[in-house]
Amino acid sequence: MNQWYETPIRVRYAETDQMGIAHHSNYLIWFEHGRSEFCRAKGFSYRDMEAEDDVLLVVAETHCRYKSAAFYEDLLTVRIRIGTVRSRGLSFEYEIVREADGTMIAEGETVHIVTDSNKRVRTMPEKYRAKLLT
Amino acid sequence: MNQWYETPIRVRYAETDQMGIAHHSNYLIWFEHGRSEFCRAKGFSYRDMEAEDDVLLVVAETHCRYKSAAFYEDLLTVRIRIGTVRSRGLSFEYEIVREADGTMIAEGETVHIVTDSNKRVRTMPEKYRAKLLT
Amino acid sequence: MNQWYETPIRVRYAETDQMGIAHHSNYLIWFEHGRSEFCRAKGFSYRDMEAEDDVLLVVAETHCRYKSAAFYEDLLTVRIRIGTVRSRGLSFEYEIVREADGTMIAEGETVHIVTDSNKRVRTMPEKYRAKLLT
Amino acid sequence: MNQWYETPIRVRYAETDQMGIAHHSNYLIWFEHGRSEFCRAKGFSYRDMEAEDDVLLVVAETHCRYKSAAFYEDLLTVRIRIGTVRSRGLSFEYEIVREADGTMIAEGETVHIVTDSNKRVRTMPEKYRAKLLT
Repeated sequence: MNQWYETPIRVRYAETDQMGIAHHSNYLIWFEHGRSEFCRAKGFSYRDMEAEDDVLLVVAETHCRYKSAAFYEDLLTVRIRIGTVRSRGLSFEYEIVREADGTMIAEGETVHIVTDSNKRVRTMPEKYRAKLLT
Repeated sequence: MNQWYETPIRVRYAETDQMGIAHHSNYLIWFEHGRSEFCRAKGFSYRDMEAEDDVLLVVAETHCRYKSAAFYEDLLTVRIRIGTVRSRGLSFEYEIVREADGTMIAEGETVHIVTDSNKRVRTMPEKYRAKLLT
Repeated sequence: MNQWYETPIRVRYAETDQMGIAHHSNYLIWFEHGRSEFCRAKGFSYRDMEAEDDVLLVVAETHCRYKSAAFYEDLLTVRIRIGTVRSRGLSFEYEIVREADGTMIAEGETVHIVTDSNKRVRTMPEKYRAKLLT
Repeated sequence: MNQWYETPIRVRYAETDQMGIAHHSNYLIWFEHGRSEFCRAKGFSYRDMEAEDDVLLVVAETHCRYKSAAFYEDLLTVRIRIGTVRSRGLSFEYEIVREADGTMIAEGETVHIVTDSNKRVRTMPEKYRAKLLT
């Protein structure tokens, strides 16, 4: 089963803009934070995957649909799950929801290519692939 | 005719990440910088449109395809043009190219809804609509 | 007594730079996050103080000494306490420590002026002053 | 003679916060941008110094005094000059001024230690030292 993994995020003052809302570029950073926490929940560290096994998930595509504004100090839930997995790439799906009232803040997807630190496309090692898919 | 408008941007050190490339969230900020400069080139200031006429172009959707990495100190060209224009919304299209070698760095689109500062959808005033479309 | 209040922060990928460490500008954002959490711990929300009582703590000065690098996924503790309090201003002191090994990452101070939303200097309302000092 | 070197910067929408002004953390990024442009004006690239000669100017200390707010689309001048130069470190001084009316926005200093990419303190190579001081 492909279930959502959830991680909280608190909107920072520095993330707001003069419209009084969280600037839309931060959503990509929150998605990325979701990926980090997702990996940790799956039993490995994205940092170690990069440092020890030379596996990088390069961002090839991002897509975000902004449904409702998020405000300073809002406690948000970033929901993340695997979209598709191929031998040399994978995608993630996201939802961001405000905890206090359940408002859907955003939906999105990111597409990634597996490379080594020299930017050469490589195959995702089976140990990470297995963990991501459990 | 719907021609590209071009504006330069220099990759900042703070925009790089530990992969040694410009972090992908910055592309949305560069797109936005392109919109500011595009408006200025069309004869009005986005700042004044917001402050004087209460017209905001709220971001409803962003989409970016990352073609090649950008590096610290790279001089990039952000190319921007109008996609579609409706009475209460519009979209922009983008390309980012590295000047030194013409490499395509990214392509993207953003979709915007026209609102007032109270987040109510409104019609784009004719004076801005006319300028954007010339 | 002027005790440290502690709040955790996890270093994000987007906060790293090509040196492989957290970019130094983020420390000011972490300090600010510490102030938000400090206020919440003292029984009020910085957001409400701004929105309901028109009290802003404008940043007048920042000072940070970087002792050791912080890395992606590091779990840090931001320690914050009140420095000085005057009728129309106050300062905070900070330490940032890595939880895993107790390494001192940074020390700093920020100085703030109390204003209203029109940037006029004003006196800190007694209810906030009392809470900050308890 | 120790003269100011000047470089322009345009305040981005993403750099504003809900107070309607440029967020104070960006000033450190603008200082850094000033350092990049300063090096380029002195005849070398900070990127090449890092990549080719393994010379890094690690930030050891930052200090900024905020004099007046900067706003979206403001055209600012970042003024930078060398403070002190020692064998294994140096400091820079900064002023940020709004072009339109000459308002002093901020003053600051940064202190740097010269290291290699393994974070070992090293001596600044004479060729860079000479260029910085001309």
